[in-house]
Amino acid sequence: MLQIYTGNGKGKTTASLGLATRALGHNRKVCLIQFMKKDYGYGEIDFFQNIKNIDIFQFGTPEFVNKNNPAEIDLDEAEKAIKKAKEVLQTKKYDVVILDEINVALNFELISLKHVMELLDLRQDTEVILTGRYADPELIKKADLVTEMKEIKHYFKNGMEARKGIEF
Amino acid sequence: MLQIYTGNGKGKTTASLGLATRALGHNRKVCLIQFMKKDYGYGEIDFFQNIKNIDIFQFGTPEFVNKNNPAEIDLDEAEKAIKKAKEVLQTKKYDVVILDEINVALNFELISLKHVMELLDLRQDTEVILTGRYADPELIKKADLVTEMKEIKHYFKNGMEARKGIEF
Repeated sequence: MLQIYTGNGKGKTTASLGLATRALGHNRKVCLIQFMKKDYGYGEIDFFQNIKNIDIFQFGTPEFVNKNNPAEIDLDEAEKAIKKAKEVLQTKKYDVVILDEINVALNFELISLKHVMELLDLRQDTEVILTGRYADPELIKKADLVTEMKEIKHYFKNGMEARKGIEF
Repeated sequence: MLQIYTGNGKGKTTASLGLATRALGHNRKVCLIQFMKKDYGYGEIDFFQNIKNIDIFQFGTPEFVNKNNPAEIDLDEAEKAIKKAKEVLQTKKYDVVILDEINVALNFELISLKHVMELLDLRQDTEVILTGRYADPELIKKADLVTEMKEIKHYFKNGMEARKGIEF
């Protein structure tokens, strides 16, 4: 099955991480591939690094990507992420593969829809989860399950900054 | 802060579990209190049982609750859950307290809005997460962050049943 968590509300990446705990609890194998997120300050990364049956691969830089003019390294990293995801699906080693923020990478044109579609065609029985805002309509069409995380209220609007242990 | 994950889409409980991993990764203490969910088949419960810094308390029965005519035990269990939640907030032992499916318990009138409000008034600096469909408008008003998980597409609609490692 192909699942997508998209929308402007909080809870997309965390929903995929929660799914990971559920799968791990049943002794499934999970792979988390993160696009545009190379940063070691994320609590979930520290947490899962000590857990068996889950492998994590991060691609990107700690810097923000300029949508209108991405740096060469952003394009390179996104390409590497796609390559790793293909490899991972081809090995069939994992029951669940999470492609975190892939929707944003596609929307920012760091990767092409064609490459994502080719990647997804490799998934066979693997549960694949795509997260991030701006999910492409073609991906929504292809998916079996889509949830839109819709922001009803957010403390960022009141000037609150991202907090350790909650937002990262 | 008070966060609510509600709506008819998949991802509410899992978002709270993902938040738990993030908090745990930063050595925060987490308490997960589940309403209407006494069942040991959930992968996440097996998973977190071996993890330090998180305590889990389940209340309810493995049976479905009849909304129009809840059994005595359903009411009792929900009352116990509220009592435990109060205790937990009063100890200030936890940084994050997740009240999973509390919105549904309230909607089913297993608990009263008055009791939930009293409970939330105890939270001080504790991050409290409420999950479940049908979040009460008064709770949404009180919350700092609300995400509606909106179902865009779901495989259950095609007759697919809940799958181990994915839905539980």
